[in-house]
Amino acid sequence: MLVIYPTPKDPEAFDRHYFDVHVPLAWKIPGLRRYEVSDGRIATPVGASGVHRIGTLHFDDLTAIEKAFASPEGRAAGADRRLFAPDDSGVQMFLFASRDV
Amino acid sequence: MLVIYPTPKDPEAFDRHYFDVHVPLAWKIPGLRRYEVSDGRIATPVGASGVHRIGTLHFDDLTAIEKAFASPEGRAAGADRRLFAPDDSGVQMFLFASRDV
Repeated sequence: MLVIYPTPKDPEAFDRHYFDVHVPLAWKIPGLRRYEVSDGRIATPVGASGVHRIGTLHFDDLTAIEKAFASPEGRAAGADRRLFAPDDSGVQMFLFASRDV
Repeated sequence: MLVIYPTPKDPEAFDRHYFDVHVPLAWKIPGLRRYEVSDGRIATPVGASGVHRIGTLHFDDLTAIEKAFASPEGRAAGADRRLFAPDDSGVQMFLFASRDV
């Protein structure tokens, strides 16, 4: 799962909540295997991205992600996410499987 | 580097070009370590995503990505990308470093 957070009004407060509260909550989600977060600036080939952080949460497969989301821990992490990145904030979330090419 | 492709008018033609032409071209870019492509549907927690494919290209670091983009092979892959996903198509590209949390 990819979660793309647009630059918030207060990036420091965002980061504090994200790393101190959200990451520990997310790690309680059953089936989470690996959790990566962008480190530093996020560029695009054409300039500033307007994106503050990108989180990548790895699960075994799409079914595992869907189970994870439906769990109490997944719902708690989702509710927490809405506190610092509401659904209408421009946050993007994509759930998908990948393969090497 | 993340590349997020919105659903094109002709997904089959897109995939043909992407896998037959773009992936081999991208593999010529110096410094590319790993190339993942989304496999199957891309969901969001709130329904359809409008996204057709997500490519993740791994390099050693952000400097390596920037060098890769400036190389002739990187420019060729970028020019090819504009053929099947023009800059004004809604394609999103994000270049960033990540760390495990």
